[in-house]
Amino acid sequence: MPKGKSVFARVPSQTGRQLPRAPARQQLLKRHNLALVLRQIAASRKLSRAQLALCTGLTKATVSTLVDALMEGGLVVESDPERGLIGRPGSPLSLNPQGPAGLGIEINVDYVSTCVVDLTGAVRQRRLLAGDNRLLRPEVVLQRAARAASHLWTEAEASGLNVSGLGVGVPGLVDFDGVLHRAPNLLKWQGIPVAELLSDMLGRPLRSVYCDNEANLAALGELWFGQRDDLRDFVFVSGEIGVGAGIVIGGELFRGVRGLGGELGHVTVDPMGPACSCGARGCLETVAGQEALLEATGLPLKAGTAISGPGGSVAELLDRALAGEQAAVIAIEKAGRALGIALSAFLNVLDLPTVVLGGFYAELAPWLVSPVTSELADRVVNHSWSSTEVVVSSLGADATVRGAAGISLRRIIDDPAAWFGDVLTKT
Amino acid sequence: MPKGKSVFARVPSQTGRQLPRAPARQQLLKRHNLALVLRQIAASRKLSRAQLALCTGLTKATVSTLVDALMEGGLVVESDPERGLIGRPGSPLSLNPQGPAGLGIEINVDYVSTCVVDLTGAVRQRRLLAGDNRLLRPEVVLQRAARAASHLWTEAEASGLNVSGLGVGVPGLVDFDGVLHRAPNLLKWQGIPVAELLSDMLGRPLRSVYCDNEANLAALGELWFGQRDDLRDFVFVSGEIGVGAGIVIGGELFRGVRGLGGELGHVTVDPMGPACSCGARGCLETVAGQEALLEATGLPLKAGTAISGPGGSVAELLDRALAGEQAAVIAIEKAGRALGIALSAFLNVLDLPTVVLGGFYAELAPWLVSPVTSELADRVVNHSWSSTEVVVSSLGADATVRGAAGISLRRIIDDPAAWFGDVLTKT
Repeated sequence: MPKGKSVFARVPSQTGRQLPRAPARQQLLKRHNLALVLRQIAASRKLSRAQLALCTGLTKATVSTLVDALMEGGLVVESDPERGLIGRPGSPLSLNPQGPAGLGIEINVDYVSTCVVDLTGAVRQRRLLAGDNRLLRPEVVLQRAARAASHLWTEAEASGLNVSGLGVGVPGLVDFDGVLHRAPNLLKWQGIPVAELLSDMLGRPLRSVYCDNEANLAALGELWFGQRDDLRDFVFVSGEIGVGAGIVIGGELFRGVRGLGGELGHVTVDPMGPACSCGARGCLETVAGQEALLEATGLPLKAGTAISGPGGSVAELLDRALAGEQAAVIAIEKAGRALGIALSAFLNVLDLPTVVLGGFYAELAPWLVSPVTSELADRVVNHSWSSTEVVVSSLGADATVRGAAGISLRRIIDDPAAWFGDVLTKT
Repeated sequence: MPKGKSVFARVPSQTGRQLPRAPARQQLLKRHNLALVLRQIAASRKLSRAQLALCTGLTKATVSTLVDALMEGGLVVESDPERGLIGRPGSPLSLNPQGPAGLGIEINVDYVSTCVVDLTGAVRQRRLLAGDNRLLRPEVVLQRAARAASHLWTEAEASGLNVSGLGVGVPGLVDFDGVLHRAPNLLKWQGIPVAELLSDMLGRPLRSVYCDNEANLAALGELWFGQRDDLRDFVFVSGEIGVGAGIVIGGELFRGVRGLGGELGHVTVDPMGPACSCGARGCLETVAGQEALLEATGLPLKAGTAISGPGGSVAELLDRALAGEQAAVIAIEKAGRALGIALSAFLNVLDLPTVVLGGFYAELAPWLVSPVTSELADRVVNHSWSSTEVVVSSLGADATVRGAAGISLRRIIDDPAAWFGDVLTKT
């Protein structure tokens, strides 16, 4: 990534002239202000230059210079002026839907999901490959994922998008270098640099490549693209075959001190309970994971084929619960109580105001919310003073793959100067 | 607290002249540098002015001006020059043991502890009042605490100390305003502004008054005054009649998003376990709290009198374990396993490198460490990649009260300019 120093001298100014090389401090200030203006446009949509000046406290002249740079860099577009109630009409500014786009890949235990998201956050292409990945070698799964992603990329290019970054979500422990250390439900996946391998397989130029735990990316997906703008502190619970959690504090992902925190699925809910794939006993996953729940309901696991997706056992579980079948409802409620016990440990540590139920828990929410809420009320010691709301993810099964696609875009919005620097250095 | 603006103009410069009123930015810079130099003196001890210049990157002239201000303000003293191996001898600088001092009070379930700590961190006065506080009205306990503290204060003054701040630790949930909301083991203590009441009862001028959960203050005590300088990320486990935890991340207390996190004692270790004072079932406290442990060993709780302290049941438990009595050892090991289960939830969330056993767990460590470590190895899913060390508090029963006494001193070290501003405005 280039330093701020070389960035601004390369961005054409309002009049098309090159800006003089300003001293380092001034360039840093401009870099900061460029990000400030772009974030404001991203957050508020349809602001005019005059409104931006009001929001940011910058002068109108400065805002204009910065907006012009953002437009010339392809990040912002201007719509036709709208007549205000008073005064001259302002031209509304918004993120450019034809600007840089992000590619997201989610590799999970029984599916691979891919999508392309544009700078405005809209999903432009999307593909889901169902199929149990536990029996396949990692290379095989990665190649399937790369083929699907490559196909989407070509489609995206055809519609005029410039795919610039890749994010990958996986159901396991990922270190700061993007290496998947261990996935309790994908036994052969150990020490695999997932994003690097996928990037090589794709064989096309990418400006940024990123890999993280699926629950972390789902939490970011919910933060950036979810329906509630006021979510800043929450734990996103990702119910799949494994159970994960992504913690967001103050609008930032909280990974724990060494980056491997947030492991909700392996919180003990019954010390003498069933053996878990991680080696311990009585982890949440052994009671409330997808397979445990299907087993408790007497539904087949269909080993070797997908259990989620249309026609899978999870759809069948949902049907039975909707039909009021006792065994299904009892099993889901039991899972809900276990989920409440594990979450109460998280909340006793973190004192968070919101739990977001995601993954297949979002579909089961009508039966889950009540037992979860009840356990939290009993077991979170500070519940009377700072209670916790349990809500349902607005992105459903797409949270992870959208978060994955959004990573590279969010980096551009957070530091457009670095993005321009790169673009202009390389072309 | 005065703003930085008015501070530096009042600190006499090296030559005794008043500094000219500098613009705000320059004053902020000086305020920053003054704190930088004082923190370096506090951390490294016995540095000379020349060494300080090297450590901080400031010029020798600037360092000298700042050191003179710190000495005139009574925060730093200079010892006789020590001859270095090469060159002129430097005068070693250190925190002034006769500078401002902090008063600490810990109110716990079966004792009240008070101490005075000087700026160097040394305990100058100390007093412990054993006695079960559960049966007494809060006002009675507070008055006993105030009398003991007042006595220490008089002693401290007689030895030339200037007690300037008060910190109070209590075994319950304290909000950001210092109000004790609820103490599960002190049923009558609800909604009590503990520090404010104590400050009124003491009836002497205090520059700062502070109240927090006893485990949080114990964690800070360990951070500031413990033997290990490398502890920056850890959870301090405070085993008393209640079980609490103070979390330190990056050298700062982590209280959770709304300030009421870190509740280790109320993490569920057995969903169907015994009823807890908090209203839930199977909390850690019901298995590993002091009373649960004594009961499991068949030792009397001596209701109405202190169970810790000399001759108490805890001392008896320790004697029996040391004598190898089976029932005692089995009970402690069982508590250790429960502690390991609850801590594994904390570590699955936070991924911390160190657990510090404090309170009466420090005394029981020879029997606790092994079962705790073993449960962590089994139940923390990332244990193979980021394992957690279990160590014993070096402050023993004094961690909380020393942390409480240290709060006001740490604030002075972090912002000496604010301290001077006040002193010089008021005198």
